[in-house]
Amino acid sequence: MTGVAMPAGFRAAGISAGIKDSGGPDLALVVNDGPEFTAAGVFTRNVIKAAPVLWSQEVLRHNSLRAVVLNSGGANAATGPGGFQDTHATAEKVAAVLDAGAADVAVCSTGLIGERLPMDAVLSGVDTAAAALDTGTEAGLAAATAVMTTDSHPKQTHHTHPGGWSVGGLAKGAGMLAPDLATMLSVLTTDAVVDAGTADRALRAATRVTFDRLDVDGGTSTNDTVLLLASGASGHTPSEADFTALLTEAAAELVRLLRSDSEGATKEVDIVVRGAASERDAVAVGRTVAEDNLVKTALFGSDPNWGRIAMALGRADATIAPETLAISINGVILYAAGTTAASRDDADLSGREIEIVIDLGVGAESATILTTDLSHAYVEENSAYST
Amino acid sequence: MTGVAMPAGFRAAGISAGIKDSGGPDLALVVNDGPEFTAAGVFTRNVIKAAPVLWSQEVLRHNSLRAVVLNSGGANAATGPGGFQDTHATAEKVAAVLDAGAADVAVCSTGLIGERLPMDAVLSGVDTAAAALDTGTEAGLAAATAVMTTDSHPKQTHHTHPGGWSVGGLAKGAGMLAPDLATMLSVLTTDAVVDAGTADRALRAATRVTFDRLDVDGGTSTNDTVLLLASGASGHTPSEADFTALLTEAAAELVRLLRSDSEGATKEVDIVVRGAASERDAVAVGRTVAEDNLVKTALFGSDPNWGRIAMALGRADATIAPETLAISINGVILYAAGTTAASRDDADLSGREIEIVIDLGVGAESATILTTDLSHAYVEENSAYST
Repeated sequence: MTGVAMPAGFRAAGISAGIKDSGGPDLALVVNDGPEFTAAGVFTRNVIKAAPVLWSQEVLRHNSLRAVVLNSGGANAATGPGGFQDTHATAEKVAAVLDAGAADVAVCSTGLIGERLPMDAVLSGVDTAAAALDTGTEAGLAAATAVMTTDSHPKQTHHTHPGGWSVGGLAKGAGMLAPDLATMLSVLTTDAVVDAGTADRALRAATRVTFDRLDVDGGTSTNDTVLLLASGASGHTPSEADFTALLTEAAAELVRLLRSDSEGATKEVDIVVRGAASERDAVAVGRTVAEDNLVKTALFGSDPNWGRIAMALGRADATIAPETLAISINGVILYAAGTTAASRDDADLSGREIEIVIDLGVGAESATILTTDLSHAYVEENSAYST
Repeated sequence: MTGVAMPAGFRAAGISAGIKDSGGPDLALVVNDGPEFTAAGVFTRNVIKAAPVLWSQEVLRHNSLRAVVLNSGGANAATGPGGFQDTHATAEKVAAVLDAGAADVAVCSTGLIGERLPMDAVLSGVDTAAAALDTGTEAGLAAATAVMTTDSHPKQTHHTHPGGWSVGGLAKGAGMLAPDLATMLSVLTTDAVVDAGTADRALRAATRVTFDRLDVDGGTSTNDTVLLLASGASGHTPSEADFTALLTEAAAELVRLLRSDSEGATKEVDIVVRGAASERDAVAVGRTVAEDNLVKTALFGSDPNWGRIAMALGRADATIAPETLAISINGVILYAAGTTAASRDDADLSGREIEIVIDLGVGAESATILTTDLSHAYVEENSAYST
């Protein structure tokens, strides 16, 4: 009992439209049947934005969505004005079958950059998907499956509030991990009654501490999109704090699923930065360490190599004082007060889960960045299979 | 006929002091016999600075050096006040054997972070090295060999000016590529007559377009140091422009040698960024692409995957307009005017040398970043061998 079509007022579908050469599922539809159509979105900060991102940013100015159509098998990025017309035509088609306006339809695409989509397949696929729309777990699963690229399994969530409303969701990808196949996409649904301002603030608050803190390889794709659709169908109006909290729980679950399925990952690593002068500093330090290849290869080798962590964080754009810095791995303080605090052999990194705690000792702010190691499988997936 | 001991007025030595467990060469001395002792240095911007960096920055306030002592087998980084005392004692020992002051001696260290140096070995090694000091190629080679960590061969240069003076040099390492063994170190020598201001400006100008543009994995070690020593022994006083030009040539040769010997590298990649609004923008774009693991793994796979290049540069902190951007690989324009310009198959990346040209089309500034691919061998060297 999980997924985007669990909250009341939502239907979903995922079908094979023939966009992928493999013939696998490649087109998903998530439809909000109301009574309300509140929506919010956050998008990639990459200046090279795919056509569907430019489209969806534009339609979300109304803070309202009737549906989201998502395709795998092509990112529709770096495809020029023709690619934008393809996105527009896709939204028009979905609007026609739902008796809505194109401006009520967001579009998400994922796959190879620089290739136009096979529009005949996309447009006939919308008809097929519309006919398959349904509520419940199976429908959400079909949608979550149809957006997969090199994901090994679909990723879904559903969190229920005792107040009688819930949040569902799907997600695919992990940063730019997949070979050629860009993009992290996520759709979150809720049957809570949520106004546009609350939806926008809650989504930004939730993604700031979840999706924005997953950093596998520093990649920010041309297509990254997280959408929230609220149907109001439960009739319950939660407080903004309650809504934000449950939305954050759902997003956090999806992010952990994304990390776990990152290509080539053999370690799931939490980098906890505390004692920072600001949250921005904590995030900057965590991301710099998360993206450092020497740290990541040491983690792959199960090596508690705090020297590489110290090296990496020392180039972060943050307030850092060598004297107050402390570094722990899996509970063992290895560096403190400017020098070695324990033998590296005291820290056991043989398991899949690793926690690195970096205490900057200069303030009271903190942040946790989720990352993985850098393995042979990562290099293999991203080199051998790329053309 | 190459190396630091080719310019008149310089002697060098490299010996086995017993710092490395392997018993290999691990201590080098470069001595300026004058008549002048002008010096300049540039150092890591990492806030976690090794003791020898803190020491050498301090003594270079006088713009004068009699000698540089360099050791491999230990970085003397994150070693607290005791580590700084070790550096001080090493400089005092060199000063004693040369009848100079400790403030005339720079110290460079490279090796494992967080371990104290075996000072008995270091101090007796200084005596051995002082007794071995000599001019010429063999002496420079011994010094260049003694600073090697996981370098596969020593790296030296010597460029002669028709005006009767020359620049020599040695270097080791490549970013933070080596397993646990941090540090890029380089010593440049010249027999030109150069005043302190010229030496400092010329060194900064040369490193800005050479050492600062080598980016293999984004690492900035705790120990990175480039020193310039000028003896004036040729009696010739070049113009600042001539001196800067030859110094830059020598530095550029050392940087190409460092890239070529980067661990695990199977490709030598020039990323040329032009049409940038500023040189800072050009460097930012080049470094972002150079550090992107998806670009680097594609290069390892000989895949002309411009989509990953577009994705990577789109997150650089620079003025970029998708419409004016053009991306070429090995002479073939693959992306222009917002979309695909040629089939990826038209670009042949099978050779070891690859040139990526990114034309931002928004200005007249440019910069070239030198990098490598990300290979299985990189992961192997930096994980399996680290403890």
